[in-house]
Amino acid sequence: MTITEKAILLKKDSPKLASSSIELRNKALSFIAKSLKDNATPIFEANAQDMKAAEESGTAPAVMKRLKFGEDKLKSSVEGIESLIGLSDPLNIVSMKRSLDEGLTLTRSTCPIGVIGVIFEARPDALIQISSLCLKSGNCCILKGGSETRRTNKVLFDIIYNAAISAGLPEGCMAQAEDRSEISELLTCDRYVDLLIPRGSNSFVRYCMDNTRIPVMGHADGICHMYVDSSADFDMALSLIVDAKTQYSAVCNAVETILINETIAKEFLPLLSARLKEAGVKMNGSKEVAALIGCNEISDDGFKKEYLDKEISLKTVNNIDEAIEHINTYGSHHTDCIITKDEKNRDYFFTMVDSANVYCNCSTRFADGFRYGFGAEVGISTGKMPPRGPVGLEGLVTYKYKMTGSGHMVAPYCDGSKSFHFVDLN
Amino acid sequence: MTITEKAILLKKDSPKLASSSIELRNKALSFIAKSLKDNATPIFEANAQDMKAAEESGTAPAVMKRLKFGEDKLKSSVEGIESLIGLSDPLNIVSMKRSLDEGLTLTRSTCPIGVIGVIFEARPDALIQISSLCLKSGNCCILKGGSETRRTNKVLFDIIYNAAISAGLPEGCMAQAEDRSEISELLTCDRYVDLLIPRGSNSFVRYCMDNTRIPVMGHADGICHMYVDSSADFDMALSLIVDAKTQYSAVCNAVETILINETIAKEFLPLLSARLKEAGVKMNGSKEVAALIGCNEISDDGFKKEYLDKEISLKTVNNIDEAIEHINTYGSHHTDCIITKDEKNRDYFFTMVDSANVYCNCSTRFADGFRYGFGAEVGISTGKMPPRGPVGLEGLVTYKYKMTGSGHMVAPYCDGSKSFHFVDLN
Repeated sequence: MTITEKAILLKKDSPKLASSSIELRNKALSFIAKSLKDNATPIFEANAQDMKAAEESGTAPAVMKRLKFGEDKLKSSVEGIESLIGLSDPLNIVSMKRSLDEGLTLTRSTCPIGVIGVIFEARPDALIQISSLCLKSGNCCILKGGSETRRTNKVLFDIIYNAAISAGLPEGCMAQAEDRSEISELLTCDRYVDLLIPRGSNSFVRYCMDNTRIPVMGHADGICHMYVDSSADFDMALSLIVDAKTQYSAVCNAVETILINETIAKEFLPLLSARLKEAGVKMNGSKEVAALIGCNEISDDGFKKEYLDKEISLKTVNNIDEAIEHINTYGSHHTDCIITKDEKNRDYFFTMVDSANVYCNCSTRFADGFRYGFGAEVGISTGKMPPRGPVGLEGLVTYKYKMTGSGHMVAPYCDGSKSFHFVDLN
Repeated sequence: MTITEKAILLKKDSPKLASSSIELRNKALSFIAKSLKDNATPIFEANAQDMKAAEESGTAPAVMKRLKFGEDKLKSSVEGIESLIGLSDPLNIVSMKRSLDEGLTLTRSTCPIGVIGVIFEARPDALIQISSLCLKSGNCCILKGGSETRRTNKVLFDIIYNAAISAGLPEGCMAQAEDRSEISELLTCDRYVDLLIPRGSNSFVRYCMDNTRIPVMGHADGICHMYVDSSADFDMALSLIVDAKTQYSAVCNAVETILINETIAKEFLPLLSARLKEAGVKMNGSKEVAALIGCNEISDDGFKKEYLDKEISLKTVNNIDEAIEHINTYGSHHTDCIITKDEKNRDYFFTMVDSANVYCNCSTRFADGFRYGFGAEVGISTGKMPPRGPVGLEGLVTYKYKMTGSGHMVAPYCDGSKSFHFVDLN
């Protein structure tokens, strides 16, 4: 089947999955968990082949670590599914129940989005996590994983799909795209795919956003900031900056730019410079910063850069307003933090900074579905419309309005012979 | 100023409006209501000029009625603003408050979307309604109204803008686009405009969707269905169909296609044919329908047509599943209704039909923000992602995650020396 044919099948079956009971969806998840455990050997064999091919093509050790799917990742994946089974059903949650008039009742309740296309990096555990989040939330999914683990992906997909079907989920609950060329076909399937979640490089996400009519959820850049306010605790600020920059530099929630209130700059910057040097971080600063600590000088445009590496931008600002304006202008609306003892400044920063995640006195690296207690995430959205921020189970639902009358026409409400009474019933 | 310059100003001021108190936003609304009443004369004068120009260019009487802005529309507009003032603040509503670990607290609360561009038909009351909904929800807006009422629009905009500013709202809370050529410039402002709401003809909405990177909320087609189930009350079905088709045919929530369960077709169709003939509705039917009542015959493609007029498509279906499949395939996911006495069929239809509004035993014409008790609406969205369906005040907000720690780094949570405890606080 082509991707379009698969998408048509999924679209057709999506109401069936949407109407499946939570018992059936959980049964499918427990079948999947069992089948993954029972099929450890073929999974590991396929992964060994992927690893061998990656090694032969000279893949970097850091990347190799992500491709590897061994005992520990199988164990944590199965545990992830088991904890997902324990989460309550995100579907059919009534957020509004209103009597419009005698015998005319309106209800708004959650339902699945429908068909979701997810394109993700070469990480076999991501395939398991994404597919189980989609099934739990009643969404059909088309999965395209990174080709470096295509053998592992195929084995995992077959195990998951067969387990889901044997539990009783509809034939079109899931599909896999195996070839990179199928991505461009997927982008044209706007009639059948309701949401696209591309993960991976900035340029790839932008390419998707620019080449499809399907709504795209995700983020291109992750240019996160920390603003060190005049009242900041210096030790706290230094530790948080080092953690947010170096604990894992290659990820979107790592910090890229530090803004320092100029009243503390002379005292704070030399301390920061020493700590960053010690941590092996290359520093790029505005003119003022370069003059103070002798680092590389960058122009305003330099602050648009996402390093994803042990490199950082530093700038002094006159006050909190300049910090906020810099963040809203140069940032990517992902995660931004203020380090301050002043609660008024914190609240002002929280309201004024236009980002999905706004923090005070903690590392930007907390922006993550697991760390928010969502169980897992399919991605982090920097768009303004919901779902925003880390997207877990709750972010994979939308809602519909259901109304039951007893022969109610609008004419009497238009000619004034009847009127609405609007009584909330929940 | 160009539209881009206006959009930049609004984007810069949007955090100020977002952080304004509900008292200030309500004060602005009451200033606006007063100023509209105080300036009735210049408004009516401008409208008289628009009406004269429209009459001279041979505008149809039905359209003229929409352009007209007299005493009654001013009164209902002012009443609309007053009832909006009475609604509770949609901002800063906490939907999640969770302690992740000792001293590390995460909150999710509502905030404005930011800058919203609204392009709407030549209806002066729409300008008042849209701008007051945006201001109440803390959103900056760029308004482009239909050019047939450009004189009225300009006077109304100036009154509203000056009242908002004199109440203390930021300079960049609102802007107006007056020229049609400015629409294409607005479409390029994806860095400054967070959401676009185009209203008007299908082709125009599609044009916007295809020519911008700004998320677009709205609907192109409104192909609404009614399915007459085998257990339907015939009298109720006949009245509802006539109401949904003829009470106001030119609108998106008017019904376009009637699907009839074949077990009742022979008995029901002649009755329906008589009622529709009496109401002056032209009928187009599938082969089976044409054979039964002798109407014009159409092919499958005919069922993709939105008439927006006193014309209707009729089709028999074998069962509820065929009705659902027809609706999901040929419909526009706007509003679809089942007429039945069977609650099981109703619930099945509600779950399986993939539309923003799913109804039972009432007219499709109820799909409207005012009729849902939202006070007013900026539009109806047929997209799957929120906001879906009629979009009022509640649909004009998004949310952000706010987290406060006391020096929390992620490193200890990664090396296992600390772990999350996840305690919901609300």
